[in-house]
Amino acid sequence: MKNRRSRLVNIASRKGFNAVAAFQPENVFYLTNFWGEAIAICCNDSTKLIVPKLETSRAEQDSKDCEIIFSDRGFQSIDTFINEAKGKIVCADDPDYSTVEAIQRRSSEKHFIFNTDTLVEGRIIKDEREIYAISKAAKVLDELYEICIDEVKIGLSERALQAKLIFEALQMDAKTACYKSTLNPLIIASGPNGALPHAQVSDRKFVDGDMVVVDLTVRYASYIADATRTFALGRTKRETREAYEVVKQSQQIGIDYAKEGILCERVDDECRALISNRGYGNQFIHSTGHGIGLSIHESPWLRNPNQQVLRRNMVVTIEPGIYIDGKFGVRMEDSIIVNNGQAKNLNGFTKDLLVLG
Amino acid sequence: MKNRRSRLVNIASRKGFNAVAAFQPENVFYLTNFWGEAIAICCNDSTKLIVPKLETSRAEQDSKDCEIIFSDRGFQSIDTFINEAKGKIVCADDPDYSTVEAIQRRSSEKHFIFNTDTLVEGRIIKDEREIYAISKAAKVLDELYEICIDEVKIGLSERALQAKLIFEALQMDAKTACYKSTLNPLIIASGPNGALPHAQVSDRKFVDGDMVVVDLTVRYASYIADATRTFALGRTKRETREAYEVVKQSQQIGIDYAKEGILCERVDDECRALISNRGYGNQFIHSTGHGIGLSIHESPWLRNPNQQVLRRNMVVTIEPGIYIDGKFGVRMEDSIIVNNGQAKNLNGFTKDLLVLG
Repeated sequence: MKNRRSRLVNIASRKGFNAVAAFQPENVFYLTNFWGEAIAICCNDSTKLIVPKLETSRAEQDSKDCEIIFSDRGFQSIDTFINEAKGKIVCADDPDYSTVEAIQRRSSEKHFIFNTDTLVEGRIIKDEREIYAISKAAKVLDELYEICIDEVKIGLSERALQAKLIFEALQMDAKTACYKSTLNPLIIASGPNGALPHAQVSDRKFVDGDMVVVDLTVRYASYIADATRTFALGRTKRETREAYEVVKQSQQIGIDYAKEGILCERVDDECRALISNRGYGNQFIHSTGHGIGLSIHESPWLRNPNQQVLRRNMVVTIEPGIYIDGKFGVRMEDSIIVNNGQAKNLNGFTKDLLVLG
Repeated sequence: MKNRRSRLVNIASRKGFNAVAAFQPENVFYLTNFWGEAIAICCNDSTKLIVPKLETSRAEQDSKDCEIIFSDRGFQSIDTFINEAKGKIVCADDPDYSTVEAIQRRSSEKHFIFNTDTLVEGRIIKDEREIYAISKAAKVLDELYEICIDEVKIGLSERALQAKLIFEALQMDAKTACYKSTLNPLIIASGPNGALPHAQVSDRKFVDGDMVVVDLTVRYASYIADATRTFALGRTKRETREAYEVVKQSQQIGIDYAKEGILCERVDDECRALISNRGYGNQFIHSTGHGIGLSIHESPWLRNPNQQVLRRNMVVTIEPGIYIDGKFGVRMEDSIIVNNGQAKNLNGFTKDLLVLG
């Protein structure tokens, strides 16, 4: 925590700031080890954590080396923030517009900049503890796929599979991960639903010949891992097997290219080139991957254009897919750690096409 | 949907706007029936839904009477938004500061206002379909409490109970609800953990004499219900029984006062007065309740100060609590519909103290 803070303060200081402030829970946690309703201000010599009364005890228990400052919610917390940041030149993260507007209106000082650059720059390279947490989360995903081997069968519904997998994940001390643009904790998309990359889990029961996209995201010790496998059911068709092999090859190319020094867009280009060459270019309708960590989607983004360079200990997903509208989808995804040589794949579950019952 | 849109456009028009725009998924859903990654613009004669390629098919399936406009993500979607809103005077909701900043920088027009007033004013009064969905969500909570009667016993861990309840909720087609300031989908807080209103689910096993706070929030058909019961385990102590009765009386007072025409702060005052009179004033460390709907916490807020007047078909929680630091907590919460007479309580599970296993 100490190293992390001084690294962040250094990044900020190179940009002319002498304090880093966080309003988003992920960033508050990154600065304080407390996940809750709070505002954090981190300077060279202290970290302050502003919390409402109902969070005070929990903040005291969970935070590391913070000065806990109680404040009522709403404008009171804004005023407390302004007061505690007095005299500092602060780079904050990216709260709601209304929060920024209230700060600008209520503060006579103009020493606040709101953008996530500093925190993104800090968070994008994972330290040892973060890698440990993400690796554990990825292991939970591997175990859930093992459970899929037993559970996924003709007649089971997407909904029932989701319930079972979430039950097992929670038992393993993982948590559901929340992504604001979907309502379900997982993506389980069978048959034609699989053609929708962000399909919502439905009551549809698996039938003979289905491809079943199982996209699992869980949090462990606050950190996210994200993986996808696509299973086949019963008598598979040639076109699904073919699409599967194309996605599998593309994903391996992505993992092979995701090395220190490579441009993010290059990884996307290479995965896409293979898929396009096989005639599925228009059916790969999203980018190749994204960073993971405290958020489900964070920097770096493996898409084109993005001339950001991959660096050691960035953690990203590699997840090409092919989506045949109205028929089926195939996606394959691992969480990997970028290295100076071959990336370390945090997911170990097989990528051979499993044909289940 | 048609009524909802024309009501919103009317609210906006009284404020000098001729379009309502939404960036937050809840608001996009409210305007379009599509929950996903999108921007919505609703005018008198049309509703436009701007989506990235990977969401296009799903948007077409789920949205009601919308013109679907494909746009790449990032600045492209901002530019598409600006272009589609050309010539309109738009009140939008409250996206990230960076989104607002990008819109302001990239648009030559100055016809955008960012605050949630219009959407809040629309969403605060629930229509028949919304009340149906919230009622169904509340029924799921009642069923989960019935399950608690069988499941909650000495030796069970908070984590195991959460896993079981989430499993059952997902089986009933409810979804986990996400609240960005906590990592767990539920709050299950036993013994001393109960003294933390937003406690995180832990490995703690229930022991004789515990009070176990079970705060359940689920989503059904996109809408939230929220309820809390506190169970006793084994040999209860006089102080826990006494606190329980005080909370129970306070909560009933809240329900009795929550009527059309009453100030929000009055409900908070009355609940608090009873608790304070019994000597627990400093142990009731949060506000009395909040609106629910598409968000877990939304207007109106039952706190002081808040001179907003309760109106028919607002849906709110009433949830006083007593928190004894290091020892235990008691909270009792129902989701209710404000009426011109007695509020309609959407939760039917008993509020008598149940002494379990």
